[in-house]
Parts: sequence; structure tokens; C-alpha cells
Amino acid sequence: MQNRLHCDFRLRSCRKTTILLVLALFAITTTVLLCGTGSPTSNTRPAEASDISRQTFAPCTRRTEAWRTIQSKYDTLIEDKFTVAVSTFHRPKELKRILGILLSDHIPSLLEVVVIWNNFGEEPPAAYDSEHGVRVRYRIPPRDSLNEKLWPDPEYRTQAVLLSDDDVYYRAEDLEFVFQSWRKFGKGRMTGALARCATPDNNGQWEYTFCTGHSIDNYSIILSNLAFAHIGLLDYYFSDDPAMTAVRNLVDDKFNCEDIALNFAASLLTGSGPLLVQGRDQYVNLDPSTGISRNSGHMEARSQCLNDFAQAFQCMPLIDESARIERGYRFNVWYKSLWDRLTYR
Amino acid sequence: MQNRLHCDFRLRSCRKTTILLVLALFAITTTVLLCGTGSPTSNTRPAEASDISRQTFAPCTRRTEAWRTIQSKYDTLIEDKFTVAVSTFHRPKELKRILGILLSDHIPSLLEVVVIWNNFGEEPPAAYDSEHGVRVRYRIPPRDSLNEKLWPDPEYRTQAVLLSDDDVYYRAEDLEFVFQSWRKFGKGRMTGALARCATPDNNGQWEYTFCTGHSIDNYSIILSNLAFAHIGLLDYYFSDDPAMTAVRNLVDDKFNCEDIALNFAASLLTGSGPLLVQGRDQYVNLDPSTGISRNSGHMEARSQCLNDFAQAFQCMPLIDESARIERGYRFNVWYKSLWDRLTYR
Repeated sequence: MQNRLHCDFRLRSCRKTTILLVLALFAITTTVLLCGTGSPTSNTRPAEASDISRQTFAPCTRRTEAWRTIQSKYDTLIEDKFTVAVSTFHRPKELKRILGILLSDHIPSLLEVVVIWNNFGEEPPAAYDSEHGVRVRYRIPPRDSLNEKLWPDPEYRTQAVLLSDDDVYYRAEDLEFVFQSWRKFGKGRMTGALARCATPDNNGQWEYTFCTGHSIDNYSIILSNLAFAHIGLLDYYFSDDPAMTAVRNLVDDKFNCEDIALNFAASLLTGSGPLLVQGRDQYVNLDPSTGISRNSGHMEARSQCLNDFAQAFQCMPLIDESARIERGYRFNVWYKSLWDRLTYR
Repeated sequence: MQNRLHCDFRLRSCRKTTILLVLALFAITTTVLLCGTGSPTSNTRPAEASDISRQTFAPCTRRTEAWRTIQSKYDTLIEDKFTVAVSTFHRPKELKRILGILLSDHIPSLLEVVVIWNNFGEEPPAAYDSEHGVRVRYRIPPRDSLNEKLWPDPEYRTQAVLLSDDDVYYRAEDLEFVFQSWRKFGKGRMTGALARCATPDNNGQWEYTFCTGHSIDNYSIILSNLAFAHIGLLDYYFSDDPAMTAVRNLVDDKFNCEDIALNFAASLLTGSGPLLVQGRDQYVNLDPSTGISRNSGHMEARSQCLNDFAQAFQCMPLIDESARIERGYRFNVWYKSLWDRLTYR
């Protein structure tokens, strides 16, 4: 009897230990998942497009002179502050949140917020100054067109425009960092948060992807739902260049892909790729249930845009970038050094 | 009896489960540690130096004209390839390894390796071409001085020089990436692997630190034991500018701090900070048992250099940088998005 009681006691202790270990394992695994690493996969990339003779796979000639001309056109605009252009479409809750993020904290280089009011038939609020002295005004576009969020508003006062949808944002404490990164490293580049890829598929067509499944970890698109763009890129987007005009018409026909089109324009003009910038915290993506990207066939439509735009340009202007900007220093990890020292080749 | 046997069986099962859980916990914890995160600490920084009137805390006037002049002096050098300048001092094993790393793989933009042969009294090997067509030559410095590794050798054929000690290196597959990052983002900057900081201490002096213990995650120094530098920075380092001459003499007196001095020269000339670049793999630091940095009082000596150099310059030219370059894209982590959506403010 004593032996069995003793055994029962040990069994209960062992069970408690087991339960604690399971909880610890669960906690650590959850923490690891929450912190994540986000390394790209390393599947093989489809055959390079360089041996495909179709024009839509040929690289474009860089428009260096045009870029220099456009830049000097905007020389007089303020260089060390930025404007936010938030596009909203019947999402009052999201708009309220974005404005809260932008205006509650003091963001030293933020000069003005322009809300592109696509709520046709509804009167926008009056313009006002925030408690930190940031001007907030509302602009009603002349047409219901996705191109309008990329319009180089003559009333913009800064060279830098942060293009933003209403459902995605950098944390306020990271915005100053991202802007300064744009100034130092990204002036001719679409500089923002969401990277995408254009990949040749097996049928000799361009495919729009999330960049996974490549052995190369490049990206060639930064979406304009959260990206800094030099106002000169918007200027070129709205120029009467035949290819740009054709592309804007395609955007209206499809009611999609203005962000891809802007990347085409930027890389054609500057000969540079985009630039992925990540703050100390990751950007927030609220991804509401309404909105274009939720429709079925989304990726197919985006791929079709790549091919139609390349057709309009008669070349592929997108340029791969492999570097991204992160915030702060990060050190060599000592135990990896130890491993290197023990196993060096 | 049967009950006790049954209990014993369950106890053994429970113990096996416990042991498995412990092993799983250990495995996950080890994996987490090996992958690491390397976030900076967030201790409060000592009082800002801006209110200290001593000259050694005043920012320097940028030498924009001089930098433009120096750059045009080297316009004819090759822009799209780089030279490695490896400094070695009686470390044949480490030198052999570095040369193996540099020459075994095909690194498309690597043109030449110059070994700065500080093994005085010992004859260096003859120059040769590697299997990938990279020229390897040996240069005996005229003096036993740390300044010599930073000499703008008139026989350098590229604008970019990768300064390297013999005990630290980027992996071969990352070198091309780091060079391209220098070309795109770091031309006027000390662009490399090891970040350090200059911090005001409580006594109104500069302190040399590993950057931890700040609430701000800036850095203002990249060590020249693994860094790309435009040859123009080396040119300015060896100029007859009175401050640079004084600084070179201090480096010889101390037999230390040539890397700090080069950062002073670079930031004074360009008005830019350094640039930390990390490859897909972390750089390797073999940290052998010989070498300067192992001596006791190392950090104190380095701090003294900061103050002596600032005295020579009559200002503090170092400039904080908060951005670093990493390789590849990295995505928003969906479960953090889920968390944001549930808890957004």
C-alpha cells in the first residue's frame, strides 16, 4: 500500500512536470513564431528571360536626361520635409485611424497630410492644422480613377510624397526614419514597405509574385500603398509620354495596377530599382474585408498588367534590387563566431 | 501488486515523455539562440553633448568642395570593380585562409588583391594571377606604421578599395552584394561590417563603445578591418591637411586607432556617416589570440583616440547613422498583422 501511494505520488509529480514542460514548449514556440525570421525560400527560379527575344523581355533604355530635367523642375520644393497623400474610399474607420497615427505624435519632418477623398457625393471635412502644426486638407479628385492618387498636385510643397492607402501604415516612431532613409538612399526610388516581384513564367510571360520560390532574393516592385516617391516620379507618371498615357488608360480600364505602373515609370526614368525599408517595428497591415486585392483572380490580373504594361513600353523597365534598409545596428552573433572558429574553412 | 505494476508502467511512460519534452525544449532553445535576434538594449543615453561648449564636441564644417575635387581626381579609375587591400602581420595561417576565401570562388567584380606585407625581414611571394583571373600582388610598406594599410596606392586601379585585416571577412557569396551596395548607397561612406559608437560620457569626454546601452540605435564608426572605402577617402587621409597630419602622427605614437582616424576623415570630407552592410550570412571574425585589440586597456585607449583626434580637428566630425543594409526582401509577418488587427490603436 505504501509503495503504491509512493508510486502514485511520483506519478502525479511527473505529470505536473510534463504539463509544465508542455506549457514551456508552447510558450517558446509561440514566441519564436511571433518574432519570426521571414527568410525567403530557395526554390529554383524558372529559366532566365535573357534568351527570350520578345520585346517585352528586353530591358529599357534609361531616361537619364529626362530624370535630371524633372528633378530640377522641383528643385524649389522643400527637400527636408514630406507630404503624406492618403487615398481613402468609404473607409471612415480606417481613415480616422491613419490620421490618428500621423497626427498624434510629433513627426518633425511631416509638413502636410493630403486626403484624396474618393467618397464621391460626400462632402469632405474642412482643412485644419493639427496640434503639432501639420496641415490637413482634403482633395476631391476630378474623376473616379486610381491614377488620381498619383497625381502630382501642384499644391504639394515638398519633394517627398508618402503615398499611402488607408489600411496600411508605418508606426509613427518609424516614419521619420523611413523618410530620412529615402533622403539618403532612395531619392529616385519607390521607397516603402511592401515588396513584390515580376518573374518570367514557363510560357514566356511575366508573372506577378510575392517573390517566394526564387533562389535569388531580389525584388523589383515596391507597392505604392505605403511608399515614398519623389514628386518627379509622379510628374513623369502623368506626362504625355505615349507609353505613360497608354499605361494610365490601361489602369482605368482594369481599375487596378496603378502601383505597378508607377514602378514601371520610376525605373524607366531613373534606371534604379525600388527600395524596401523596414522600421524598428513592422508596418501595420489592416487588410480590411473590402478593397480590390480581395477579389478572386487578383494575382492573374496583376500578371496581366505586367505583360500589358511591358507591351506598352515595348520593353521591361523593372530593375531588381537585392538590398533592403533596416533600422539600427546589429552585431555579429558571438556563438556563430565560436562556431566559425571551430569549423572554419 | 497489479496496481503497483500498472502505476510503475505509467510512471515510466511519464518519465519518457518528460525526457522527450526536455530534449525538445533544449533543441528549440538552442535553435533560437543560434539564430538570434541581436536587438539593441534600450538603456538611457547619457546627457547630450550639444550643451557642452567645448570645441571637441562641436560638429565640423563639411568639406564639400574638397570631396568633389578628390572624387574627380579618381574619375578615370574603374568604377564597377573593386580591389581588396589585406593587411597581414605574421599570421600566415589567417592570410592563407583569407586568400582562399577571396580567390576560390568567382567574384565577378573583384579585380585585384593587394597584400600589405608587414612581415618585415621576410620576403613576400611573387605576384600571380588566380584561377579566376584576379591579380594578387604583395606590397612591402616603407615603414612599420598602421597608416600604411590606408595608403592610396597609385597602382590601385579601382575607385573602390575593400580594406581588410587578415582575421575577418565576408563570405565570398556576399562580397559581390556588399560591393554593389557600396556602389548604390555607400560611395562616400565607410561601408562595412563592424559598427562602433562615440558617446559623450559624464565627464565631458568622448567614449568609445560597442553602441549598447543607448536608447538610440545609431552608430557613427565602421571599422576598417572590413570596409569598402572610396580611394578618395584614403587620399584625404594621407593629405598634408594639418589636422590629418597630426592625426597620422597620433596613430603612429599610439600604434592604434587608424580605423577611427579614417572615419573622422571620411565624415569630415563627405558630411555623411558610415554604412553597416550585412550579407546573407554574417561575416566571420576569427579573432586570433595575437593582435592589438586583445591588450588590456583597449577600450580606454580607443576613447583617448576619440578625444585626441577631436582635439586635432577642433571639432567632432563623426556623424550618426541609424540605417543599415541587409540582403534580400523580408515580409510583414502575418501573425503580427493578426495581432495588429485584433488590438490596433
